[in-house]
Amino acid sequence: MNTNWRSPELADIQAAAERIAEHVHRTPVYTSHLLNARSGAELFFKCENLQRVGAFKARGACNAVFSLSDDLARGGVATHSSGNHGAALAMAAAARGISAHIVMPSSAPQVKKDAVAGYGATIHECEPTLAARESTLDRVVADTGAHVVHPYHDPRVIAGQGTTALELLEQVESLDAVVVPVGGGGLLAGVATAVKALNPKVEVIAAEPAGADDAFRSFGLGRLIPQTAPNTIADGLLTSLGELNFDIIRKHVDTIVTVEEGSIVEAMRLQWTRLKTLVEPSGAVSFAAALEYPERFRGRRVGVVISGGNVDLDRLPW
Amino acid sequence: MNTNWRSPELADIQAAAERIAEHVHRTPVYTSHLLNARSGAELFFKCENLQRVGAFKARGACNAVFSLSDDLARGGVATHSSGNHGAALAMAAAARGISAHIVMPSSAPQVKKDAVAGYGATIHECEPTLAARESTLDRVVADTGAHVVHPYHDPRVIAGQGTTALELLEQVESLDAVVVPVGGGGLLAGVATAVKALNPKVEVIAAEPAGADDAFRSFGLGRLIPQTAPNTIADGLLTSLGELNFDIIRKHVDTIVTVEEGSIVEAMRLQWTRLKTLVEPSGAVSFAAALEYPERFRGRRVGVVISGGNVDLDRLPW
Repeated sequence: MNTNWRSPELADIQAAAERIAEHVHRTPVYTSHLLNARSGAELFFKCENLQRVGAFKARGACNAVFSLSDDLARGGVATHSSGNHGAALAMAAAARGISAHIVMPSSAPQVKKDAVAGYGATIHECEPTLAARESTLDRVVADTGAHVVHPYHDPRVIAGQGTTALELLEQVESLDAVVVPVGGGGLLAGVATAVKALNPKVEVIAAEPAGADDAFRSFGLGRLIPQTAPNTIADGLLTSLGELNFDIIRKHVDTIVTVEEGSIVEAMRLQWTRLKTLVEPSGAVSFAAALEYPERFRGRRVGVVISGGNVDLDRLPW
Repeated sequence: MNTNWRSPELADIQAAAERIAEHVHRTPVYTSHLLNARSGAELFFKCENLQRVGAFKARGACNAVFSLSDDLARGGVATHSSGNHGAALAMAAAARGISAHIVMPSSAPQVKKDAVAGYGATIHECEPTLAARESTLDRVVADTGAHVVHPYHDPRVIAGQGTTALELLEQVESLDAVVVPVGGGGLLAGVATAVKALNPKVEVIAAEPAGADDAFRSFGLGRLIPQTAPNTIADGLLTSLGELNFDIIRKHVDTIVTVEEGSIVEAMRLQWTRLKTLVEPSGAVSFAAALEYPERFRGRRVGVVISGGNVDLDRLPW
């Protein structure tokens, strides 16, 4: 990974949008009178759960893969992932016609492995520890010459995720605020960059589970605090903020709020039953913020990013 | 109920479409490469689970309510329902600004009662038997002068449900077949009438749970067999076919197939996980037919009507 990467700017995000246009969906924006009444705000749900592979990760992975020179692309791409980024990178590599190597912990759900394998990627299983994931990835790269695409600490990935906001601001006029879930910070950094470049008056609010609040604490203290022992059902938001992401977030994000587990479950259930759309716990954290802090949103036009919809139907949190 | 009603024709369905346009959604058509691969057919899911009140019932109820003369409308409307028709009639009445009286069994889930009450309708609770529902409805009508709108044995309702097919045939070119769940037969009769009038070459296939197969048996024997002791998770398809509906179905439907409970659950799970959209068991019966009878659909372009998406998240069938 290159630690000298510069932060992406609006032009990078616009270039990403053009680069990935034929490989990802322009996702719809859902609204609900009932959820507006429930929250007191006018909510515009940006449905990245309806994105390819069921999550915004398709955007960043496609931008990274299609940014590679032919020389770099020849060796394929690699990453370690137990979640949506692995499937997204596998999909993007298949779209470009190059190989993908995905290091996955042996404990990863079969459905996640099937998704990755379904795109023709090679799965390298390892012990379910970060050390094993990293050493296995190092070995795969040494063996294959594959190019590593990190899930969030990468300006190409951040620029790709930022295309979510370009669409949202085209789809909805006069937004007052945008709420985004934060884990590693790729989506948040990309969205914040795009929003502030296009309209600095739109407030950018990050929502984080109280049980994995490294971004909240880092933001408050002004230095990066790693996430240790996260405890939340939002399994996409367990990781620590990336360094590059943190720099961007400090610059462009207005507020970070934390939400309780009960709010996340309530938000999920309301989105499932009222929008009739599947939202994963991590994806419901943004709406949970609107439920838990109604005074922040009352009477405002708020974009709420639903980041993903990949849930295990046999392990629902209710 | 008027037993001399005539069957609606295409012109009635087109008039219904105009009448209800501003009160119901033009629902989207979803597709999925993965579900196409899984079924061997090219499937176009007509998402009536994203309709107002979460089911196609909004169409028929609105057409009935907005067909009433001002004189008839003055007394309001009434029905008995434990399900989607009650909420749909309450919504339609609210849209016209008239009162609605919904007779509901005391055993109806609170969420259904809340939905009806949310539209400002008056709920009349009764014992959970058909006899009690009918006698309570008779009493309410005697007391209020309300006009009864039956959930399916009514040409205005049938014409309203048929607007689903007008949209589907506009949204998808060159369909070979359309699959529709059948319970009371309102949706099926309306869709079959519209499809055969617009393009008689499109095959109309009804899908029914094997555990509530009165339409299948009636269709085969050529006479109406009432449904007794239904046993299926598809709780919207428990009722017997209406008489008027049966006449229309005999005339315009090509085939009725029955599906097993296991196929319904599999269809639901696939639609939830792949389309990221909530489908109720009754709404998944059409896709279940494509899974259970792949030879009928292989290589064909098939419209699959998802009739509704109102599920109790605390009582999922897996």
